[in-house]
Amino acid sequence: MKIEIPRGFKFYSGNAGFYSEDRPDILIIVAEEGCSATGVLTTNKLRAAPVRLAEEMLKKYRIFSGALINTGFANAATGKRGISDAQEILDFGKKVLDLPYPLIPASTGVIGSYLPLEKIKKALESLNKHDDLELAARSIMTTDSFPKFYSVKGSKEYCLAGITKGAGMIGPSLATTLTFVMTDADFSPYFLKKALLNAVQKTFNKIAVDGEQSTNDAIFLFSTGKIKVDKSMAKEFEILLVNLLYELSMKILRDGEGATKIIKVITKGFASKKDAENVAKRVALSPLVKTAVYGSDPNWGRIFACVGDSNSYIEEDRLRIFIGDYPVFKGEPVDFNRKELSDYLKGDSIEIVIDANLGKHESYFFSCDLSEKYVEINSSYTS
Amino acid sequence: MKIEIPRGFKFYSGNAGFYSEDRPDILIIVAEEGCSATGVLTTNKLRAAPVRLAEEMLKKYRIFSGALINTGFANAATGKRGISDAQEILDFGKKVLDLPYPLIPASTGVIGSYLPLEKIKKALESLNKHDDLELAARSIMTTDSFPKFYSVKGSKEYCLAGITKGAGMIGPSLATTLTFVMTDADFSPYFLKKALLNAVQKTFNKIAVDGEQSTNDAIFLFSTGKIKVDKSMAKEFEILLVNLLYELSMKILRDGEGATKIIKVITKGFASKKDAENVAKRVALSPLVKTAVYGSDPNWGRIFACVGDSNSYIEEDRLRIFIGDYPVFKGEPVDFNRKELSDYLKGDSIEIVIDANLGKHESYFFSCDLSEKYVEINSSYTS
Repeated sequence: MKIEIPRGFKFYSGNAGFYSEDRPDILIIVAEEGCSATGVLTTNKLRAAPVRLAEEMLKKYRIFSGALINTGFANAATGKRGISDAQEILDFGKKVLDLPYPLIPASTGVIGSYLPLEKIKKALESLNKHDDLELAARSIMTTDSFPKFYSVKGSKEYCLAGITKGAGMIGPSLATTLTFVMTDADFSPYFLKKALLNAVQKTFNKIAVDGEQSTNDAIFLFSTGKIKVDKSMAKEFEILLVNLLYELSMKILRDGEGATKIIKVITKGFASKKDAENVAKRVALSPLVKTAVYGSDPNWGRIFACVGDSNSYIEEDRLRIFIGDYPVFKGEPVDFNRKELSDYLKGDSIEIVIDANLGKHESYFFSCDLSEKYVEINSSYTS
Repeated sequence: MKIEIPRGFKFYSGNAGFYSEDRPDILIIVAEEGCSATGVLTTNKLRAAPVRLAEEMLKKYRIFSGALINTGFANAATGKRGISDAQEILDFGKKVLDLPYPLIPASTGVIGSYLPLEKIKKALESLNKHDDLELAARSIMTTDSFPKFYSVKGSKEYCLAGITKGAGMIGPSLATTLTFVMTDADFSPYFLKKALLNAVQKTFNKIAVDGEQSTNDAIFLFSTGKIKVDKSMAKEFEILLVNLLYELSMKILRDGEGATKIIKVITKGFASKKDAENVAKRVALSPLVKTAVYGSDPNWGRIFACVGDSNSYIEEDRLRIFIGDYPVFKGEPVDFNRKELSDYLKGDSIEIVIDANLGKHESYFFSCDLSEKYVEINSSYTS
């Protein structure tokens, strides 16, 4: 069954031969009559050329024809030439498709190589036009093992659809990997910007595969405004956008390099919000916790050690730790059924609950387990 | 050849059967006529019972009979009972050996189980007395694959000897794993404390296997004062102590769980000390950099991304990155001989140099590569 996409969008996939002859590696998202755009960009201080260029364009223009995305090369660490290369590709893409408004650039792939301009241009000269969300998602994959896309419908049949890519190098406190969300709901650019920021905070900023933050990460939201909406739908839209980004972010975790399980760390009872956030993130990112979960090993002492290593205020005799529904520490070690807990840990979604028992603040953080496969994938990426 | 140990020390090794019938798992370091003691303890907020007890004792007493170390069990997350268990073992050991002064406790092993008191007591009743530094080091091993010890001599033949253990869960900003340094040089406790802190800052606080900080980490320095020294030797002693802790810390890295190479990250040219320190640590701890080094993959873009992700002030066009002697980035990508650089990365000591080219501040940080073996070891530790 074909997945519906918001009215006014089309896709163009291309193949520059970066991965294989039959795998698309270039995508242009086109809003034929133009769209508004907003974005959340990486906070990495050495941002790639397309990210710097995108930021400028978001400030400068109000209407866009869409976005031009290439995989294979991140166009990061490429200095001034990186900027002019990106611009050259954008101009070429705009001309080839005869578009009235600018395209926003995005790149993902190896850092530190210049864009192979001729190859990309050649690919842009024979694009495949379609409206297939899955194929669009497939066209922006790098080490991803499956295409990541999602679509939801709101009142008056407005639609939200998104594609995302990313497997490793996914860290918190940024947009995290490339994500493109499209809608036809006619909300103001100001509202869409606020809604996107809020949704990113609750989803993409709460997941990590390995805590690494890339030079290229960005999440964009485009709207053609084809469906008239009224203010009463704003709340619904916000919820649907969080829902969409949540589903996309879970697909990324599920496909975390070498990941076999999703880990959700829930913190509660902390004296401050920051304390709750720190502990959730610290535990979720711990390689020792991640390997223990991978091995279905109920070695909760590693969770305990991370809690102590997190800078958050805690008191040992008030602290409670649960793995799933099983208490393992309540101010002192709890006798638990080792077999049952190990069986729980063999599932593909693991919850760890840490209750400081000191106050009312809570938080959460998602990550995935760490397997030999992560090392295998990442020890030979460029070679 | 037998390694010399400082005058006045003896060892007692025991076997409580935690690992195998012929592998010692308990050690008492004894200064028969007493010794001074100082220590640097973990900053983890959920410190194990022996660490809390040791801290109290270091404040309360001036002369000690040495230290009692058990492996197998960390006696962490064990609440009040942990403290009384540790005290019970200390009292028992002191009585068995008929010692005049208190023993300092140290434990290492699984977190969250109570000490098996009867097994330990039984082992303490049939200890093996010796003066073999290697056997002493062997008696405190857990997942270590080889015993870690080192010994140096100073003027007037005073001696410094140390043993250490630790393979994973080694993070910065703490004493890092259990380390016991012995000397017969008659320096004041005040001087020894200062010298130890200084040496730890320069060595153990600059290494990390996985960035994890344990509940039990401690470094102790004991002196019998058997060799009279004068003030003119203070500088020499400080240097030898740094040297000793450096050698011990490198043995830990070399034995980092699954490690095949040591990585040294050198930062220079930063606008502030903190900026230089942040970048060195951020790059050294990056799983993506560690896996690339493991795979001898000259994927320097990952180093670049980490530098940008470090919160330190940098300017892309001034930044220079070297792997060994090979420049890979100088404000823009540098053409390098891929084969030569990959060959360099096949060595067992890899240097990464990051020059911000902005100021005079520098730093360094040591870590090791990340292999499938790390995951293998850590996914099934307690089971």
